[in-house]
Formats: sequence, structure tokens, C-alpha cells
Amino acid sequence: MGDAALIQALQRIVGEQHVLHAPADLAAYAVDATPLLRSLPTVVVFPGSRDEVKAILELASEKRIPVIPRGAASNLSGGTIAIEGGIMLNMNRMNRIIEVDAANLTATVQPGVTTAQLAREVEARGLFYPPDPGSQVISTIGGNVAENAGGLRGLKYGVTRDYVMGLEAVLPNGAILRTGGKNAKDVAGYDLTRLLVGSEGTLAVITEITVKLLPKPETKRAALAIFDRLEDAGRAVARIIENKIIPCTLEIMDKGTIKAVEEFAHVGLPTDAAAVLFIEQDGPRAVVDADIELAGRLCREEGARDVKVAATVEEGTKLAEARRFALPALARLRPTCVLEDATVPRSHLAEMIRFIEATAKKYNLLICTFGHAGDGNLHPTCPCDERDHEELERVEKAFAEIFDKAVSLGGTITGEHGVGIAKQDYLEWKIGEAGVAVSKGIKAVFDPLGILNPGKVLPKATRKRLVVRQG
Amino acid sequence: MGDAALIQALQRIVGEQHVLHAPADLAAYAVDATPLLRSLPTVVVFPGSRDEVKAILELASEKRIPVIPRGAASNLSGGTIAIEGGIMLNMNRMNRIIEVDAANLTATVQPGVTTAQLAREVEARGLFYPPDPGSQVISTIGGNVAENAGGLRGLKYGVTRDYVMGLEAVLPNGAILRTGGKNAKDVAGYDLTRLLVGSEGTLAVITEITVKLLPKPETKRAALAIFDRLEDAGRAVARIIENKIIPCTLEIMDKGTIKAVEEFAHVGLPTDAAAVLFIEQDGPRAVVDADIELAGRLCREEGARDVKVAATVEEGTKLAEARRFALPALARLRPTCVLEDATVPRSHLAEMIRFIEATAKKYNLLICTFGHAGDGNLHPTCPCDERDHEELERVEKAFAEIFDKAVSLGGTITGEHGVGIAKQDYLEWKIGEAGVAVSKGIKAVFDPLGILNPGKVLPKATRKRLVVRQG
Repeated sequence: MGDAALIQALQRIVGEQHVLHAPADLAAYAVDATPLLRSLPTVVVFPGSRDEVKAILELASEKRIPVIPRGAASNLSGGTIAIEGGIMLNMNRMNRIIEVDAANLTATVQPGVTTAQLAREVEARGLFYPPDPGSQVISTIGGNVAENAGGLRGLKYGVTRDYVMGLEAVLPNGAILRTGGKNAKDVAGYDLTRLLVGSEGTLAVITEITVKLLPKPETKRAALAIFDRLEDAGRAVARIIENKIIPCTLEIMDKGTIKAVEEFAHVGLPTDAAAVLFIEQDGPRAVVDADIELAGRLCREEGARDVKVAATVEEGTKLAEARRFALPALARLRPTCVLEDATVPRSHLAEMIRFIEATAKKYNLLICTFGHAGDGNLHPTCPCDERDHEELERVEKAFAEIFDKAVSLGGTITGEHGVGIAKQDYLEWKIGEAGVAVSKGIKAVFDPLGILNPGKVLPKATRKRLVVRQG
Repeated sequence: MGDAALIQALQRIVGEQHVLHAPADLAAYAVDATPLLRSLPTVVVFPGSRDEVKAILELASEKRIPVIPRGAASNLSGGTIAIEGGIMLNMNRMNRIIEVDAANLTATVQPGVTTAQLAREVEARGLFYPPDPGSQVISTIGGNVAENAGGLRGLKYGVTRDYVMGLEAVLPNGAILRTGGKNAKDVAGYDLTRLLVGSEGTLAVITEITVKLLPKPETKRAALAIFDRLEDAGRAVARIIENKIIPCTLEIMDKGTIKAVEEFAHVGLPTDAAAVLFIEQDGPRAVVDADIELAGRLCREEGARDVKVAATVEEGTKLAEARRFALPALARLRPTCVLEDATVPRSHLAEMIRFIEATAKKYNLLICTFGHAGDGNLHPTCPCDERDHEELERVEKAFAEIFDKAVSLGGTITGEHGVGIAKQDYLEWKIGEAGVAVSKGIKAVFDPLGILNPGKVLPKATRKRLVVRQG
């Protein structure tokens, strides 16, 4: 099928005004939030309903044309790059909150609803949707489900997967699949709901999502602890958990990140500190106050130079800003910013950060680390310049060593950013040969023609591990 | 391969003392906790290690012999019946708690560890493993994972799936699959962990399990509310949730169940009541006291005749006994006891119980209902006599109508008991044609020879729905 015929066929399905194919438009859809990756789709289409999605997939199956489902494209693993061209299936028109069901504590939404929009809508009714990925202002629930998005509240509240109760999805052959529903318990067959969560648009196109809600916590409170030694911060994290406190947020920033944030935002962080912990607890007031008080005391016992406890929710929000500035502050240092996602069991936190520092030094790079200390989900971030190929090679080598170390500590190659293109060559390090084999089999069951987001997640080849260790 | 040769080959793998084949032994393994089902395995084998499991599966694959993995066989859906004969793979020798990791809040166990054993072991360290299926004293963690077992704490704490972080499993071809680990966040590829959870031993044999733990709640407290009208109890459940209370346990018993329990155990329940709610909350003392006080007040506002609040944890345990007696009390009424598992969104609780009552009347049966009101997971239970074929036919017809009603209310055919043999003909009602098709595809990916727990979960044929409604 020629491009012109494809464009016409798509226009007949969704209407002329919902198809883009001018070169300038295609260029805008050649990238996502991942640096270094770029590839033009053949056409961009905006379906308005499940039945339009079905018609597009049936056409694509018949003509063997790749389809790349896309929300806000805020993913960081190249998950929405049209590496083989094809139809960019932009889900943003399907952005209705269909229902907030307070009696069953669920919300049902179309995939194009933004995370922030859902959060606001349910909060207005005294309810709470916990997953809060960094990109929540623009990211869509459909994208969150496809990527199994995490966020700052993962330690206490879990990730997107833990809130998805039911899905409607269209298979590449046009069949409609409905999984789960509003039932707190449901063991009718294999868990197809969670199989689709985190499948990065490679198995089906999600057209409706039912999520679980919680009652909104009564209040929250925050503290910031400043450390002169990284190990002290690592030990403070361990002591907090040992003392049965599960904060809703427990974030760490290392020396390099602190310096970048302070130079960018002047929030009053001491640039000579080795690490800061941002601690937030939510829940009933008495519990929140007791937890924050104890967490602060434990930080001091482990050597914190200073612990600032917010007196009010607003003051806590100000403390949180320092952490939120980490990525923009680092991104402005150099033309390119490689944000990574190595994750380890939390007991290995300090060891992993130390290894990242040593690796950066070895390859003569600046790698700053911040992330979700409570769940061991670290974001080593390397400001660099993609035009400098020699530097990029060092970046790649350094991160290969970092992933290898994470896996050898019982960690994973990606905690919340997904595999996409960026990590597919590392996937076998984590899930092994048998894991790759069954995953390829599952892909073939859902998408036998391989038209759905081709070239993502599943490895074509696997990298040699740099260091061979017992897995 | 003849039976004698098979027995010898198995004896070479696990040692002679770990193979049973005498007729009396086989008879003991012909049943599980499901009534009406019975089929003899060819041989029963007790592997002691993952490598023995691997060798058994390789042998079974080579000789095309069915393998039925089994824990305590306390499942209620025929999931461990050897309907085609073959090797009953009893996992109970692999019963080591390998590690309780307080720093990462995880425990790693072999599949034969009982639920109660794990719960005790972690409680001794101030930790908490929430899933509490009714059979927890005998049920194994491996069985819980295979069935995605629920329990009384599902409303607040979720089910087994929500606690499984990592698995080691042997595929039918002998390959070792490792999924997940100790990472709170992990999006490396498709969610194979949750695909195995609830797969009822049809995809792989689980040989090691890493579960998530929580800090042990500070205290707990219980109340029992007695209602003269079923609808009042249903409304009280809704009001409790609307008032942002998520009790750790919120159970209901209907009139028939109350009567049976009181006649059996003389715990002081009023036999003229229409329903009782058992409410338990755990957490920090101040929160627990406030929640139980408010829940009790809401029950009174909705018409509860009486609300007994336990003054101590021990008194609460006594109140809980009434609920725990439900099944034994009903089981003694007649020779056979069919315990079912229809589940609806909680807002349809009272409607569903009324429908069950009407259906029992229509078919001239006694069906008593108790279950997990907070999560809509009901256990309509029918004391009957399996020797009376005419009665059994009425039982089957009544339950077919009950499942149909549950599905048409947005519920499911099984909340926590699994599909097994008992529900496979109903599966398509819930997951649809597309769901059955991809599930069969997934089964073929893991088990292309169909040797693992054959004849379970996936339907051979689908029942006609009695009443056609919009799904």
C-alpha cells in the first residue's frame, strides 16, 4: 500500500482532520522524551473511539503496516519511536474520564486522560490515585499503563500495576479483549490485565482503563535531612524501614545533583553536603507527626548534619521542590541529558551509588544520582553532548557497567522507565534465556504479524555481559 | 512407558522412599478439597529440590506423561485432580523458609512452606504477611501462588498476587525461569511473575517464591454488628467505605449461615437476625479505635439492632470465631457441601445475596451465603447430598444462574477459588472469546506438549449462558 493510499484509508476511518502527514508534522512525532533517538512515522492518526482503533488495526494487519501507540510520549526508553515508520497512533483524543465510582473505589477512563487530570478529579471527591510518575502533568494514563509507570510514592503505594483493575484493549487482529473489572478479587483465568500492564504497546492497544482508588489521606508532612557522608544517608534509609516506617516518599540526591539544583534554583541546599534525603509521610495526623519525628531523629542518629521538618503542608511542598528540580537542573548543564534507571534492593543503595560514582570517574564523566531511595530505584543521570561521539561511547560503556552491577546485586536493568529500544539488548541479563523465549512466544500469540510497536522490548541480540558473575 | 518403568525412573530421580504407588496411597491423592471430583494419579512423587523437579519434568516431557503439581490440595476448584492420571508432583518436601530479609522487607521460601508457618515466622520478627486464605493452617505458599489465594484481609491488603515479587519456576521442558526479585520496582519485560501467579499449575512448576512483607500493624480491634434486614447490612458496608474506612476485615453472614453457626457452636448469635457484619481494623491504636467506633456508629445509623465492640484483641478473636465456624457449621448439615465463589463489585452486594436467596427458593435448595463483604467476594454454600443426582442437577442449575447474575452485575465467576475443573466451562462468560484465545496461546507457549496439569482452567467447550444480557 502506497503512503497516499494509506493516508486516504485512514482519513476515511477517523476523518480528514485527524490525520497528519505533512513533513513538519511527522518531524514532531519522530521523537519522544528519550535522547538520541529519532525516526519518522509514515503518518500520524488520532482515533476518537475504540471502533476507530479497531478499524485502524484491521487495516494495518491487512497491509502489514507497523502501528505505534502513543500517549504523551514522555517515556524515557524510546518506546514510542517509529523505528520502522508506519502509523503513529496518537491516543490523546480519547481523553474522557468515563466514571468515578466512589462506592466501589474505582475510576474508569479513556487512555488519553492525563495522570494529573485523573489525580485532580478524584481528589476533588476525597479520593486518591497514588501513582505519580515524574511526568504526571503531561503523561497519560494509557502511557502509564503501557509502561507500568512508577513515581515517588512507589515505596508505600506501589506502581501503576497495583492500581489497574480492568482493561479494554484491541488486539492487532481487531478483536476486543476485556480483562478484569471492578472486582477486588478475580481469579478467572490467567492474569491478562497485568500482562498488558508494562507491555509497552507491543501486545494490544489499550482503549479503556479501570483503576483502583483509595481514600485520600488526611494529611501529609515532609522533612529534608542533610548528610556529610553518603553512607550515613544509606544507613538512615535502612533504619527508617527497620523502625516500621514506610514513608510515602523517601528520595535521595547525591552531591552532584545537590550542586546542580542549588545553582539552578537557589533553594538553600548546602552545596558541600554529600547527600540529602527528602522524606514525606501521609495518613492520619497523629501517625504522620510521629513518623516524621522519628524519621528525623533516626537521620540525626545516623549523622545527619541538619534535619528541616516542614511545619505545614505548604512548607513541605517547598522542600519537595528541591527534589523536583533535579532533572531540569541537570538537563541544563550540557546539550544532552541521559537519564537512567538502574534499580537495586534498597539494602544495596549506598553501594550502588558508590559504584556509579567510581564508574563516572573511570570514564571521565559527570554522572549525578538521584531517585527513589526507599525502593532502591536510582536515576543516575549523565549530562553530555550527543554531537561528541567519543564521549557518547564512554557514556554507553559506563551505563553498561552500571546495569551489570545492578543485576549482580539482585537489581534490575529498569525500575520504571521500561525496556523500549534503550534496554532491549540488556533484557536477557535480567530475565534469562527462558524469560526471553517465553516473552517472544507471548508476543507472537498477541501479535503474530509483528505489526504492533515493532522492534521494542524483545531483544534481537543480547549484549555480552562485561563481567561474568553468578546471577 | 509402562507404569512400572515410570515408577523406577522416578525412584532413580528422587529416591525410592519418595515415590508412592500402592493403590491405597494413590486413593489418598485422588481427591482435593473440592466435592464431587475424584481421579487416581498413576504415581505420587515428592521432589526434594529444583533439580529433581527439572529431571521429573524432562522425563514427563519425553514420555508425554501428565504432571499435576500439588501443595496441600486445599483448593476448591478441582485444580489438583489427576483427571488424566499421571504424576502427582507433591511439593511438600520443599518446605524451607530460605530467608527473611528485614532490610528489604521480603521473605524467600520454597513452595511447600505453609501459609501459617510463614505468617508465624515473619510475625516473630515484627513483620507481616497479609494474605490469609481460609485454609491457611494447611495451605502452602506454592499453592497460594498457583491459585492467587485471597482471604479475609483482601479489601485492605489485596491478595497473594500483590505480595509475590519474584519466582523461580521450571518450565515443562526443564528450563529454569527466574522472574522479578527483591526490587520494589521492576519493568524489565512482560510481567511473567503475575502471569504465573494464579496460573493454577498449568504453565510451570514454581520452586521458589520471594514475597513482600509489611511492618506488623501495632494493634487490631473487632466489632460484630447484627441486622434485622439484609439491605441494612449492605448499606452499612457502603457507608463504611464512603466514610474512608478500609477495614482489614469486613465479613458478612446471612440468616441461614447465622443459624447454622449458632446451632453448631453456640457463640451467642441471634438466630432471628437477617445478617451480621464482622468488622476488624488494624493499624496504630488511635486510628483503629476511631475507625471501629465510627464503623459501629454507621452500622447503628443504618439500622443495626446491636453492635458488640471487642474490648481487647482476645475478645476480637472470639468474635472472629463466629465467622470462622461458617464453613464447618454448614458442612455438617448434609453429606456434601458445595462452597462457591461468586464475586461482584461491592455496591451490588445486597442485590447479589437477594438473588442467591431467590434462586435457592426457585430450585428448592438451602443456599447460605457468607463471605468477604468488603470486596464483594461471596461464598454461597449449598449443603446437599451427592448421592441424590436429581438434587445435584438442581444445585448445578442454581449455581449456573448465580454465576450468570454475577457476571451481568460486572462481577466474576470466581473471586479467589480459581477456575480448575469447576469453572472452566464458565470462563468465556467472563473473559470472552478473545480472552480464551490468547489464554490458550499462552498455555501453548509455556507447555506446547500439554503435559502440565492438563484439562484445567482453559475451556474445552463453553456453556450457553442461560440468560443473554449485554456483557
